[in-house]
Amino acid sequence: MEKYYIGVDLGGTNIAVGIVDKDGVIIYKKSTPTNLPQPEEVIENKIADLCREVCADKGMTLGKEIDFVGVGTPGIVNNQTGVVAFNANFGYENWHLKDKLESLLGVQVGVENDANVAIVAEVVAGCAKGCSDAVILTLGTGVGAGVVIGGKVFSGSNQSGTEIGHMVIDAGGRPCNCGRRGCFEKYAAATALVYDTKIAMQNEPDSLLWQICPDIDKVNAKTAFDARDMGDETARKVVDTYMEYLACGIINVINIFQPQILCLGGGVSNQQESLLKPLQEYIDREDYARNLSDRAEIKIATFRNDAGIIGAALIGVK
Amino acid sequence: MEKYYIGVDLGGTNIAVGIVDKDGVIIYKKSTPTNLPQPEEVIENKIADLCREVCADKGMTLGKEIDFVGVGTPGIVNNQTGVVAFNANFGYENWHLKDKLESLLGVQVGVENDANVAIVAEVVAGCAKGCSDAVILTLGTGVGAGVVIGGKVFSGSNQSGTEIGHMVIDAGGRPCNCGRRGCFEKYAAATALVYDTKIAMQNEPDSLLWQICPDIDKVNAKTAFDARDMGDETARKVVDTYMEYLACGIINVINIFQPQILCLGGGVSNQQESLLKPLQEYIDREDYARNLSDRAEIKIATFRNDAGIIGAALIGVK
Repeated sequence: MEKYYIGVDLGGTNIAVGIVDKDGVIIYKKSTPTNLPQPEEVIENKIADLCREVCADKGMTLGKEIDFVGVGTPGIVNNQTGVVAFNANFGYENWHLKDKLESLLGVQVGVENDANVAIVAEVVAGCAKGCSDAVILTLGTGVGAGVVIGGKVFSGSNQSGTEIGHMVIDAGGRPCNCGRRGCFEKYAAATALVYDTKIAMQNEPDSLLWQICPDIDKVNAKTAFDARDMGDETARKVVDTYMEYLACGIINVINIFQPQILCLGGGVSNQQESLLKPLQEYIDREDYARNLSDRAEIKIATFRNDAGIIGAALIGVK
Repeated sequence: MEKYYIGVDLGGTNIAVGIVDKDGVIIYKKSTPTNLPQPEEVIENKIADLCREVCADKGMTLGKEIDFVGVGTPGIVNNQTGVVAFNANFGYENWHLKDKLESLLGVQVGVENDANVAIVAEVVAGCAKGCSDAVILTLGTGVGAGVVIGGKVFSGSNQSGTEIGHMVIDAGGRPCNCGRRGCFEKYAAATALVYDTKIAMQNEPDSLLWQICPDIDKVNAKTAFDARDMGDETARKVVDTYMEYLACGIINVINIFQPQILCLGGGVSNQQESLLKPLQEYIDREDYARNLSDRAEIKIATFRNDAGIIGAALIGVK
């Protein structure tokens, strides 16, 4: 009998639950609105109900084909005890999520921070498969990071580390919500690229950027790359500046962690080779270990939108 | 019978060997010039001879009171196999130092990178005693770093990580020998503080800095702090700017590693409280985990000039 795993992506808007095989393929998934605010018990029961529902829909039984449920949740998570020390969005403190779900579902439950499940997915079944040391940077609204060291998720002694998006790379630079200036994510997040593209458009009414995206409110992380590929000089500058800062932060991460694989996820990573190629050139020039044979490799993350469900499920394989 | 440990600090200029107790106290030490260049065998024999010599001088016997010899060496070290993959200063590759010394000395030998032994000393017997997660930053010629995660020295998958001195904090800033611009150590090393002090003196002939240090070639990491404490405005600016950049890099390290203890060593750390107090204010404002009860603490490293010998010896306790 082949074993499957349930992955739960607990978000502020939706709770998404999927049945996943050992290779990270989603067999079936379903979601329900989170409808915050809610007391803890309501969320626990929503998760448990949805787990039972996907099993019933696929004719599977908890404890039989499926003996593990993994949850990716926002907040400060102790992945050993499965206790969520603090979850600001939900308003919970000291939430014994693992224990609660185990008693509701009768199978083993694992809980991990939602930023960390993405690297679990990559290490178990994605572009870093089999690696003991890997890092993912997710270039989205901010820059999220997940780190695996010696085969284990690393998140610092208080489960609040690897805030790589809040590593300052330009002292005194752009103000960040975290209270610092010059944080990596203010330059390298998809949001930052969109912001820079819009500023460039406002300054250059003749740029091809306006042809690609006549409605400035619809600019996305792809706009500047597309206009650059059409030969637009304004877009080229936007992309070059973005790449320079992105490379700066990535090389910091390599110099600090020297992972086997550093993978890139999030909206910007859809650029694939046109992202990797110039980054590799920067890395070849600046990686402190550039003269060694044993060097960190950069890749595009395998898992995309469903990385949350898949990574949470694959905690059970790890 | 109390057990002792031998620590070997293998430097390009001198080889220093000491007998150390389990609390990190040096009982006896001796050194000999390295006299590079030398073939590997000569260095191995010099180390072994000096180990036998310190034992004989103190009436101790290898294999009896002393059953461990630890070596801190420059280069890329695999601390499991004790092989030095590459040591640029000595010109060695794939040097099986642990095996060679074990056959020469007949006791267990441990080998670690010289930047890492300092954190071993602090975790075993110093300011981070008993910590499973700790970081040391050594503010000297450059910024050296040692990291312990989960009780083990962490140095990346290729033993070349934790180059925290080569984390860019000011993109496009001061050029560094490593090929990047804006590296942390170009602002936070003792060397950087000395450089900034000299520049300020050249620009301000009336500064008290000249009274404290009439010979500009004798400026050290203490000069600016001393003049600042006497009320000199030029020195105050030098110290404030230095502290700002130092705090920037330290908070990056905290946001990434969230260690239990981050300790500061090297020349600048002699400033003790006048270093820690302003740093703590920066950290209280900018640490991403500043609202948690469980936070990283900063301290001055316990072990000073002999940290190399002590840390190498204490690999045997760890």
